[in-house]
Amino acid sequence: MQEASIGVTGLAVMGRNLARNLARHGHPVAVHNRTAARTEELVAEFGHEGTFIPAKTPRELVAALRRPRRLIVMVKAGAPTDAVIAEFAPLLEPGDMIVDGGNAHFSDTRRRERWLREHGIHFVGTGISGGEEGALHGPSIMPGGSAESYRELGPLLEDIAAKVDGVPCCTHVGPDGAGHFVKMVHNGIEYADMQLIGEAYDLLRHGAGLAPSEIAEVFAAWNRGRLESYLIEITAQVLAHTDPATGRPFVDVVLDRAEQKGTGRWTVQTALELGVPVSGIAEAVFARALSGHAALRRAARALPGPRPSRPADAGSFADEVEKALYASKIVAYAQGFHQIQAGSAEYGWNIDPGAMATIWRGGCIIRARFLDRIRAAYAADPATPTLLADEYFAQALGDAQDAWRKVVATAAHLGIPAPGFATALSYYDALRAERLPAALTQAQRDFFGAHTYRRVDREGSYHTRWAGDRAEIAV
Amino acid sequence: MQEASIGVTGLAVMGRNLARNLARHGHPVAVHNRTAARTEELVAEFGHEGTFIPAKTPRELVAALRRPRRLIVMVKAGAPTDAVIAEFAPLLEPGDMIVDGGNAHFSDTRRRERWLREHGIHFVGTGISGGEEGALHGPSIMPGGSAESYRELGPLLEDIAAKVDGVPCCTHVGPDGAGHFVKMVHNGIEYADMQLIGEAYDLLRHGAGLAPSEIAEVFAAWNRGRLESYLIEITAQVLAHTDPATGRPFVDVVLDRAEQKGTGRWTVQTALELGVPVSGIAEAVFARALSGHAALRRAARALPGPRPSRPADAGSFADEVEKALYASKIVAYAQGFHQIQAGSAEYGWNIDPGAMATIWRGGCIIRARFLDRIRAAYAADPATPTLLADEYFAQALGDAQDAWRKVVATAAHLGIPAPGFATALSYYDALRAERLPAALTQAQRDFFGAHTYRRVDREGSYHTRWAGDRAEIAV
Repeated sequence: MQEASIGVTGLAVMGRNLARNLARHGHPVAVHNRTAARTEELVAEFGHEGTFIPAKTPRELVAALRRPRRLIVMVKAGAPTDAVIAEFAPLLEPGDMIVDGGNAHFSDTRRRERWLREHGIHFVGTGISGGEEGALHGPSIMPGGSAESYRELGPLLEDIAAKVDGVPCCTHVGPDGAGHFVKMVHNGIEYADMQLIGEAYDLLRHGAGLAPSEIAEVFAAWNRGRLESYLIEITAQVLAHTDPATGRPFVDVVLDRAEQKGTGRWTVQTALELGVPVSGIAEAVFARALSGHAALRRAARALPGPRPSRPADAGSFADEVEKALYASKIVAYAQGFHQIQAGSAEYGWNIDPGAMATIWRGGCIIRARFLDRIRAAYAADPATPTLLADEYFAQALGDAQDAWRKVVATAAHLGIPAPGFATALSYYDALRAERLPAALTQAQRDFFGAHTYRRVDREGSYHTRWAGDRAEIAV
Repeated sequence: MQEASIGVTGLAVMGRNLARNLARHGHPVAVHNRTAARTEELVAEFGHEGTFIPAKTPRELVAALRRPRRLIVMVKAGAPTDAVIAEFAPLLEPGDMIVDGGNAHFSDTRRRERWLREHGIHFVGTGISGGEEGALHGPSIMPGGSAESYRELGPLLEDIAAKVDGVPCCTHVGPDGAGHFVKMVHNGIEYADMQLIGEAYDLLRHGAGLAPSEIAEVFAAWNRGRLESYLIEITAQVLAHTDPATGRPFVDVVLDRAEQKGTGRWTVQTALELGVPVSGIAEAVFARALSGHAALRRAARALPGPRPSRPADAGSFADEVEKALYASKIVAYAQGFHQIQAGSAEYGWNIDPGAMATIWRGGCIIRARFLDRIRAAYAADPATPTLLADEYFAQALGDAQDAWRKVVATAAHLGIPAPGFATALSYYDALRAERLPAALTQAQRDFFGAHTYRRVDREGSYHTRWAGDRAEIAV
């Protein structure tokens, strides 16, 4: 009997497509699902694509794998993942590998990795981005876990990953939860990117008065320039689409309530823990939450807006919005990469941020020409504390800033919410500020809570006796 | 031997001052500290203020209390609190009460309450705001726990709380962790309020070119109007203060790095969990974090800013900033109260938000004339989904909006970071928007992940076959 190179358990659409991708690349793949019918369906429908070895039980699946065994788990994050691991771990031997390809929280991945390591089993929490299509045709793959496990798994994963300029969109991210951490931040950046696109659309629609079909053309044009990316491309397609039922622009018949599955929220919660300002991602998460608060929106709808007005010229405004979008996007990515660097330092992962930009260039939702710039920035200065300081980005921001400021001001005057553009500009201006009002904040904290402060002119911590003689004492 | 009405263990400055406050109000108070010297010091120094019964051991402390016993724990949040509870619980009897007056996370309070309830002991997680001075002279007190425990504890706590118009700044917040939850949000609001004040200062300083002493006068004038509050008052005092060592404005010698102890971060993390947009608090937490990233700030300092310019007139600009500050403050508080209502619904606490505004009017850091307006808004409509819809606030926002928009636009043009003002305005404009670009976001999600969407014109969930014939299917 032929031995399988790798096994996949969990054959919902993501697992099934990943198994097909492996088989199409010539890797015999053992497949298993809790409900056996799904396994049979896969083999019946796609058996011609490669070598599938169906397994009815976990024991059969494990028996079909050559050693060291490589098993990909594609089930729901949380309790189902724990259940599957608990089922398979006793059947494995030291040196075997369990790959979790779901959207686990990195802290769960750290816990599971620690536990399985004690039994000699490699646990490889792996971010996989690109949805169903990506899983089948080439996703962006972010494996964590041990370097040793990557030596065994890497060639297979790189084989089925997307390729850009011949380079696979897969690399070893770092130990234990590093892969899932980076995937989480990837998703957070995706939230921010989508929010900024939404604001750009909203400004063109309600600021410049363009129709969705006209805005589709604007986005299509942007997609031929430096903003070229999957998200800009599909935005053009969505905006060009007409609702078959009503003949109205499709975007107008969709309820304006954006849902979320949680990784954006995790990104912000983790960033808060790490002390990293990711305001662009936070505003995106909040905007989705706000859109769903129907009762609040109903109650607030009568609140007064500004007197109506319109920017002078739709054409030049679109150019300005492009600049604001590009600049805000640079900031959102800079915040996300800051979080990756902070997480890497906190957990000792030694993540190469430039390599993350490289493997996001294809396969995933945020794939973009732009990521090559980030790769280049880290190549030029691997230790840069912020992408904003990179020569190319600093130049782009400088070139964009007049338009960016104008767009933020216009949004404020027209009453169009642009929290993503606004917070990106605030972040830019705060980072470059010579002095921040944080000095006042810290002085207030000393006033009401004796929390002390530092001075600009000498070392040490100080407290002013505010309630007394207002003398300063060293603490 | 006289029996004590209440006991306090943990005699660092907060515990000591709370014990003194109790004794000064005629309540015999048993006092205990792990290091007995501190107990002796308290009695030696302040024994004349009332009846203190020193206890050397937990057993002695418990023995000194009349039944049902009331014991206030004033130790550090986290492990020390658990340790003290574990030490005292076995010495108590059913019906006794443990009050945790520290800054515990409400989920820890829920866990402790559940555990002690099984032993018949009431655990009363209690938010206490006002710092050292408040603890001594009258804090704002936010007790959670059972209604039964409040019947025993309430009179004592109300006795030592701050009073406004004769009304004590203390009320039963709700069961288990409700008190600590509300205290957490209180602190989050405090972060937002301080950030907005910082931005107002920064705009007057670097936008209008006023000196700190001149800005002190502006704040002092504001403190005679609708912004009257403790934080505005101390801002005026801090800005008027001259550094004795250098003769420079004090705010200029303080290092512009604001620290934080964690409750602001908790507030945002919890809000994300609850799906409540608290962008004003988030921007405040991020601004403090950003101020501490010295390496990033150094790297970004050379980034280009706008060409220098200045608003026409410092006098009228100060009036505009006052309006922007007031409007942004309304939004920040509306977001915080939304979080309180969401938490109350999630955990079944049945919190009366108007009562929270009432007990924050005195004793605490955010005490302000303004809170009477919030109390009145909830009195007028206890079920209002947002304070913004209240007649007074809607009017105030409408009156402020021209100036508010102008200030946000001016900040953008001048390159002065005003993330708090900007996000408050975005929130306002988003809540009142007829249509949000969330429709586009949801359509994108359907495009790349088949996440489906709802329609504005009929019920149900739908998916468009984007990769195929683009027909719509009901899901």
